[in-house]
Amino acid sequence: MTLSDDWFTELCTESGSAFSLKVKQKLHEEQTPYQHIAIYETEFFGTLMVIDGFIMLSDFDNFLYHEMMSHPALFTHPGPEKVVIIGGGDCGTLREVLKHSEVKQAVQVDIDERVTRLSEQFFPELCEANDDPRAELLFADGIQWVKNAAPASVDLIIVDSTDPIGPAEGLFSAAFYRDCFEALGEDGILVHQSESPLIHQPLIRNIRNAMGSAGFTQLLTINFPQPVYPSGWWSATLAGKREPLTTFRERASREKPFATRYYNHGIHLAAMATPEFWKERDRR
Amino acid sequence: MTLSDDWFTELCTESGSAFSLKVKQKLHEEQTPYQHIAIYETEFFGTLMVIDGFIMLSDFDNFLYHEMMSHPALFTHPGPEKVVIIGGGDCGTLREVLKHSEVKQAVQVDIDERVTRLSEQFFPELCEANDDPRAELLFADGIQWVKNAAPASVDLIIVDSTDPIGPAEGLFSAAFYRDCFEALGEDGILVHQSESPLIHQPLIRNIRNAMGSAGFTQLLTINFPQPVYPSGWWSATLAGKREPLTTFRERASREKPFATRYYNHGIHLAAMATPEFWKERDRR
Repeated sequence: MTLSDDWFTELCTESGSAFSLKVKQKLHEEQTPYQHIAIYETEFFGTLMVIDGFIMLSDFDNFLYHEMMSHPALFTHPGPEKVVIIGGGDCGTLREVLKHSEVKQAVQVDIDERVTRLSEQFFPELCEANDDPRAELLFADGIQWVKNAAPASVDLIIVDSTDPIGPAEGLFSAAFYRDCFEALGEDGILVHQSESPLIHQPLIRNIRNAMGSAGFTQLLTINFPQPVYPSGWWSATLAGKREPLTTFRERASREKPFATRYYNHGIHLAAMATPEFWKERDRR
Repeated sequence: MTLSDDWFTELCTESGSAFSLKVKQKLHEEQTPYQHIAIYETEFFGTLMVIDGFIMLSDFDNFLYHEMMSHPALFTHPGPEKVVIIGGGDCGTLREVLKHSEVKQAVQVDIDERVTRLSEQFFPELCEANDDPRAELLFADGIQWVKNAAPASVDLIIVDSTDPIGPAEGLFSAAFYRDCFEALGEDGILVHQSESPLIHQPLIRNIRNAMGSAGFTQLLTINFPQPVYPSGWWSATLAGKREPLTTFRERASREKPFATRYYNHGIHLAAMATPEFWKERDRR
């Protein structure tokens, strides 16, 4: 069968698959200096943001991604005070980060201010924490920002980027990870979204290798469901310098004083489980 | 955008979404007395079986579903000797069940013999265990089979059914679960595939309620990724009579002597993790 025009469809060429959402109307569309952004109202998934033809987020399921990009790493660092988000212009990760009272400063560095302005307009829930005095919103090149950061000045770097094509390509390189390594303190942790565990194993391997050659000795790839991304299953890779990343502040996680919709202590443990077919990858 | 004709598309009307796979060719198509079956060769997901327009399985990712429908329940029962699979005509669940040496007899009861014959032809890997002397393949009404089973004669019933519309509808009822309860021994476990944790919460609630009113006092819904099903995230619900289903033969699971691609001890534990938003469901 063929879908009619009132569907938004994203192709995933590398897996010969496509995911479509029924659209009520297109709410907005613009070409920024960096990318093409479109906003749709969908039938069931709420508001949808699409960048360069790829789904970034929907009202319905973004909590999965945003919670898993932030809370596991935040509960792994012994005392995360300074957090930097590279990308993440929709502000959903920033909101989760600022749920942690230990965090004294959270800097979001997205190259494209329009992502944030459109998020304020169309995803106001995600921007709830933008006025928090601890939040700093910069619109600049994240690669440059990290390069210029004072050594050992940051506790946690969250790379909440688009796919490794287009503006985000440089964020998947050993050179960038090396700058992150320098900017992070001894207990510092880097997190990067690392695509589908099922479809993008070679990319995950590359990310892990690049992090390793950047100096990180501890690596951990976690996984979680994410319906609007290819295969519906997604991952994030954490990199650290000292302590195994499987050890985290379990009591703090168990007794977290803030609300989440997916993350909790049990989910944190679950996200670290390694399917049999990953073990093969880790041996290579 | 609109996909061209060389894609197979499945609509999920209840979530206003669609999933498509690029097709190289249609290999087979027929109308059986029960349903319409089509087999495709896809670009990336291998061979694909579609029943009444709904994707049943692909070469690429069926291991997730088949392993999670069988191994968690098998390692939870203290000594599963007699297993009955209701539905499951593709024989993939049967193959996983027979990896357990404790199993002395595995009866597969699918109403539609054509599913099995086509699986033998197009998914030979899944039918590898069909000649195992412990396997018995029946083509009959599973509801009737369970009704006629001797009381307390079965250790594990796996309901590997299609969605709760069409021929499988009666499998989602308290009446059927009551017959399962009678057929199962004291330690007996019933497992039923229970659709998407994200999209089908009302159905999962209904399944759990129906199992409860059928007499089962122990309920456990597990979750796992499944790209070809709506939302890419799927669940199975286990029901038991006595012991909490969160307790399983951990050592046997850790030291399992057979190969899997997804399931292992850590994945078993992970599949039981309860996302925050489920806790709300379980309170109702």
